[in-house]
Amino acid sequence: MAFKPLGDRVLIKVEEAEKKTASGLFIPDNAQEKTQKGTVVAVGTDKDVITVKVGDKVLYDQYAGTKVKIDSNEHLIVKFADILAVIE
Amino acid sequence: MAFKPLGDRVLIKVEEAEKKTASGLFIPDNAQEKTQKGTVVAVGTDKDVITVKVGDKVLYDQYAGTKVKIDSNEHLIVKFADILAVIE
Amino acid sequence: MAFKPLGDRVLIKVEEAEKKTASGLFIPDNAQEKTQKGTVVAVGTDKDVITVKVGDKVLYDQYAGTKVKIDSNEHLIVKFADILAVIE
Amino acid sequence: MAFKPLGDRVLIKVEEAEKKTASGLFIPDNAQEKTQKGTVVAVGTDKDVITVKVGDKVLYDQYAGTKVKIDSNEHLIVKFADILAVIE
Amino acid sequence: MAFKPLGDRVLIKVEEAEKKTASGLFIPDNAQEKTQKGTVVAVGTDKDVITVKVGDKVLYDQYAGTKVKIDSNEHLIVKFADILAVIE
Amino acid sequence: MAFKPLGDRVLIKVEEAEKKTASGLFIPDNAQEKTQKGTVVAVGTDKDVITVKVGDKVLYDQYAGTKVKIDSNEHLIVKFADILAVIE
Amino acid sequence: MAFKPLGDRVLIKVEEAEKKTASGLFIPDNAQEKTQKGTVVAVGTDKDVITVKVGDKVLYDQYAGTKVKIDSNEHLIVKFADILAVIE
Repeated sequence: MAFKPLGDRVLIKVEEAEKKTASGLFIPDNAQEKTQKGTVVAVGTDKDVITVKVGDKVLYDQYAGTKVKIDSNEHLIVKFADILAVIE
Repeated sequence: MAFKPLGDRVLIKVEEAEKKTASGLFIPDNAQEKTQKGTVVAVGTDKDVITVKVGDKVLYDQYAGTKVKIDSNEHLIVKFADILAVIE
Repeated sequence: MAFKPLGDRVLIKVEEAEKKTASGLFIPDNAQEKTQKGTVVAVGTDKDVITVKVGDKVLYDQYAGTKVKIDSNEHLIVKFADILAVIE
Repeated sequence: MAFKPLGDRVLIKVEEAEKKTASGLFIPDNAQEKTQKGTVVAVGTDKDVITVKVGDKVLYDQYAGTKVKIDSNEHLIVKFADILAVIE
Repeated sequence: MAFKPLGDRVLIKVEEAEKKTASGLFIPDNAQEKTQKGTVVAVGTDKDVITVKVGDKVLYDQYAGTKVKIDSNEHLIVKFADILAVIE
Repeated sequence: MAFKPLGDRVLIKVEEAEKKTASGLFIPDNAQEKTQKGTVVAVGTDKDVITVKVGDKVLYDQYAGTKVKIDSNEHLIVKFADILAVIE
Repeated sequence: MAFKPLGDRVLIKVEEAEKKTASGLFIPDNAQEKTQKGTVVAVGTDKDVITVKVGDKVLYDQYAGTKVKIDSNEHLIVKFADILAVIE
């Protein structure tokens, strides 16, 4: 099942926060929400507007987008304008 | 009785959530609302704007649109801009 | 007394919900509000914008428009953009 | 004292609701507010926009406009766009 | 001290409500607020937009503008679009 | 330390309300806020839009702008559109 | 890890408020929030719009932007329009 975003939208695979710290301790779940980082998985049809490409790691506005579960991984469909920066 | 959406609107047949799980158990009704998925049944008159076609399976913004019952099946009339992605 | 809608407005005669069911039982009044269906009775002066015509049966946005009583029948003046679909 | 509306505004003399019914009974005052009908008394300077003329009986949006007392008669200054229909 | 309004703004000297009635009684102060009438004292620099002139008596939107005291007289700086009508 | 406003912004030195009355009494501080008057200290880069110049005494919208302390004097950065009038 | 802001956005390293006063006393943390000053670290792709450059010290709107931690230093991604002034 593949999602093809429409218009100026971008599909992002949300980065999973580490469940263990370096020392092996588990951080409780609520401390992990709002990573705001992810990887571009698919881009919409407005190629003129969208300047990120599949594979880019991005930082996005935490209040933007619609959550979608794909193969039990959390994804987000956001408008390109809600992507703040590319992380290199 | 057929509905012909006007302008940039699209008529979607809402996907029915499975009432039984694979093992045959019934999921209570409130666990099923908000599938956000459906199939395009009719498209409006703004052919320039609308890039989905009848038969496309789509993901839509859960707060968008107007519910319509047709032959006791739940449908939704949404603006094209509220369709997030095509599912393939 | 005739109402001539101005601009992009349309005058709709609201469809009366059946007061009796097929089996002859009366449905209480509050179960009938919000039919959202009606018949176009007059159209405004923006002929370029308005693509419905007198006699069309239409579905309209339930939060749109201004109620008007004409000969004790409920009518609604709505903007064309608030008409969702033509019913055939 | 005459009021000359500016721009796309229209001055309307609000129709007085009948204080007596045909049978001579008085309706209490709060049952009479919101007639939403009146007669055009003066039109603004945007002649291109305004398509009603002095003497037209009109139906207007009940939440629109500014009340003005002229010779102890209630008037309303509304934008043309808030006039819904001409009554004939 | 003179105020020169900028852009599409107009300086209005607010009409003082009569403090005495014809019979010589004083009306309490709170009964006098909101006259909404005044005289144009100065106009802004957007001569294309502003069609009132110094000396015009005008009716303005009661929620518009910024109050200014000049020589202990109440004045108001409003945008031209918030002047409803010229009073003749 | 100098502030160079960007775009259509203007830096205003807020007029200090007199701390003493003529008779030498001190007015409590809260009676002094909201003078809304000041002197232009620097103007932004949009010279086409901004028609005030350094040294002009101006009246500004009391809810506009961002407060900045420069050498312990209160200043305000406002958009030009929030300056209501020049005081002469 | 480098952040490349998209569009009209600018990455700002927030100025750290002095944790000690001149006399060596520590100010409690909550007295330090909202400096609103920082240094431009990276600029977005809209070179036509953005007139600040890397290294500029700027004053920004305190309600603007998204906080980002880079190497445990507080940063902010803001739209250029939310930068009020350059500090020299």
